Amino acid sequence: MPHTRTTPLIQSLPATVPFVGPEVQERLNGARYTARLGANENAFGPSPRAVEAMKTAASEIWQYADSSSYELRAAIAEQHAATPENVVVGEGIDGLLGYLVRMMIAPGDAVVTSAGAYPTFNYHAAGYGAAIHKVAYRADSEDLPSLMARAAETGAKLIYFANPDNPMGSWCKGADVAAALEHLPEGCLLILDEAYVEFAPKGTAAPVGADDPRVIRMRTFSKAYGMAGARVGYAIGAQPLIAEFEKIRNHFGMNRAAQAGALAAYHDTDWLDHIRREVQTAQDTIARIATENGLTALPSATNFVAVDCGNFARAVLAGLIARGIFVRMPFTRPQDRCIRISCGRAADLDRLAAALPGALKDAGA
Amino acid sequence: MPHTRTTPLIQSLPATVPFVGPEVQERLNGARYTARLGANENAFGPSPRAVEAMKTAASEIWQYADSSSYELRAAIAEQHAATPENVVVGEGIDGLLGYLVRMMIAPGDAVVTSAGAYPTFNYHAAGYGAAIHKVAYRADSEDLPSLMARAAETGAKLIYFANPDNPMGSWCKGADVAAALEHLPEGCLLILDEAYVEFAPKGTAAPVGADDPRVIRMRTFSKAYGMAGARVGYAIGAQPLIAEFEKIRNHFGMNRAAQAGALAAYHDTDWLDHIRREVQTAQDTIARIATENGLTALPSATNFVAVDCGNFARAVLAGLIARGIFVRMPFTRPQDRCIRISCGRAADLDRLAAALPGALKDAGA
Repeated sequence: MPHTRTTPLIQSLPATVPFVGPEVQERLNGARYTARLGANENAFGPSPRAVEAMKTAASEIWQYADSSSYELRAAIAEQHAATPENVVVGEGIDGLLGYLVRMMIAPGDAVVTSAGAYPTFNYHAAGYGAAIHKVAYRADSEDLPSLMARAAETGAKLIYFANPDNPMGSWCKGADVAAALEHLPEGCLLILDEAYVEFAPKGTAAPVGADDPRVIRMRTFSKAYGMAGARVGYAIGAQPLIAEFEKIRNHFGMNRAAQAGALAAYHDTDWLDHIRREVQTAQDTIARIATENGLTALPSATNFVAVDCGNFARAVLAGLIARGIFVRMPFTRPQDRCIRISCGRAADLDRLAAALPGALKDAGA
Repeated sequence: MPHTRTTPLIQSLPATVPFVGPEVQERLNGARYTARLGANENAFGPSPRAVEAMKTAASEIWQYADSSSYELRAAIAEQHAATPENVVVGEGIDGLLGYLVRMMIAPGDAVVTSAGAYPTFNYHAAGYGAAIHKVAYRADSEDLPSLMARAAETGAKLIYFANPDNPMGSWCKGADVAAALEHLPEGCLLILDEAYVEFAPKGTAAPVGADDPRVIRMRTFSKAYGMAGARVGYAIGAQPLIAEFEKIRNHFGMNRAAQAGALAAYHDTDWLDHIRREVQTAQDTIARIATENGLTALPSATNFVAVDCGNFARAVLAGLIARGIFVRMPFTRPQDRCIRISCGRAADLDRLAAALPGALKDAGA
């Protein structure tokens, strides 16, 4: 059987992965979710200008997209005092993480991340045979000094660090990230995942130059820009590093309408401000719902809120799922005392508020 | 500098790749093309039902797509007397080829393809360190018996074979492909790229069962379905092989609107018939233009036509490019006596007809 001739590395990988989407769960459960609060999607939607651009592009979809994503890269570069050669656009941060790991990691090479941080980095790291070293969170935050210390110990080629963090919603000052780079081991690259940074307080984005060879910064149109289903992410880094992506990326991999939509969204700063206000309101609502149910909402710099349910988190999650509310929870102790609730629309959060008391009661909380 | 810590394999890869899209060329040339006939795009466009589905999905793009592409896989499976577990959907055939090569090829493993066949297979094969063995075309066709013989000699794990062929437009009977499988070496997998098969005469699609472990068949929505910019391809194969993709693919990599559009397009068989008629007309027009200019159009089972320009092909190509006509040509002798012209709309082909005499004159033909 030819499939048994997969590489030894592929044979070593698990057959199942943690990415079970809500549609898959709905089919398994035989019931639709009534509130979609588990994937940190932005239910307030993309800029109307982005929607219009995507609709226009639908009729032109017979053409491949610009394989260089030039206009989008140029617009991004301008905002970051960089050049288009500092920017690569890809199929979401997930896709870019895959390319980056492939570029840097041969089997056995070390990488460092936090126990319970974004699993897709680990998925790609394992997929290319990395030795994955994990550092515990400290006070519900990814612990950058300890990540760097572990990288030094292990000779790691990559550190994954998200600011703000997912799944806890915590954050640190960008200036602290920049200062910590002094302690980055020689030859180690920091992946700074800023997927949620547009929701964070001013000063959270790290003041790091695009040409700094120590850092590659990842951003996305999936969160603040409300285009998760479009699959547009980007990375900013030193030109020699960014150039390496050209050797391996899927050159015609970008959806044409998605690129047009992202460009329109990027220019609509009024809509971004509107989104920030909506998300702030939703954060407050989730915190209120938590308090009303005797639970504690953690501070958040993202479009989701981690709600501390103590020992009952897993049971509460199950109760919410059973009641048609799609939410998720952290994988790892001690973060897994929380459930993670995305900043949905008022109607979604009303459904959450209606379901939570029953879920808590069933959980014996 | 961290970027110098890329893997030895990545360091061995060329910094430039052959995929220079028309937009990139336009920027380099400082002029727009007036006819886009170089990428085998389907200028007759997607089904109006697909366009409508994509427009509707634009407003819902804040949601990730179904990570399992279930509905699309189910529809495809139904047409192929298969199950959804025989089908994987990915970011175009290009994306699926990348995943497949990654699954099968460790550095030094052998693969076999034809000299001058689809370069993206070679790109991925080189990208994962394959030893690439090439077999010459025979009478402008990919030579399946010789490919199999070479695979036996080299112990190849993969054979790439396109039917119909790109860039020559030639084809063979599907029954001959199925019969040739008797000679496939043990443990070798045939990649049967049927990207253009919807344009080909009845009987070109190979009568191979979805569960046959010797073959993985690749199809796309980029050509007959007119959705190149959407990035939707699929592969059909034995369930154990298809299951391996789950270990490595970008699980949320598909654009939501693209999936909705592909599903609508797949069901619109009337539009597909309309496209086939338009492409047939364009094939005839290109052949007539060739004849009027003293050139010979090769028979085609695709939405492009290879036109034999003898020793002048490269110069004729340059002359057409200079006149704003985007066309391409085969990379390799003896196919590179031809230029490859996509089946555009009447107005596009009018521009080609207007430009060709001058291009031939400049070429000294």
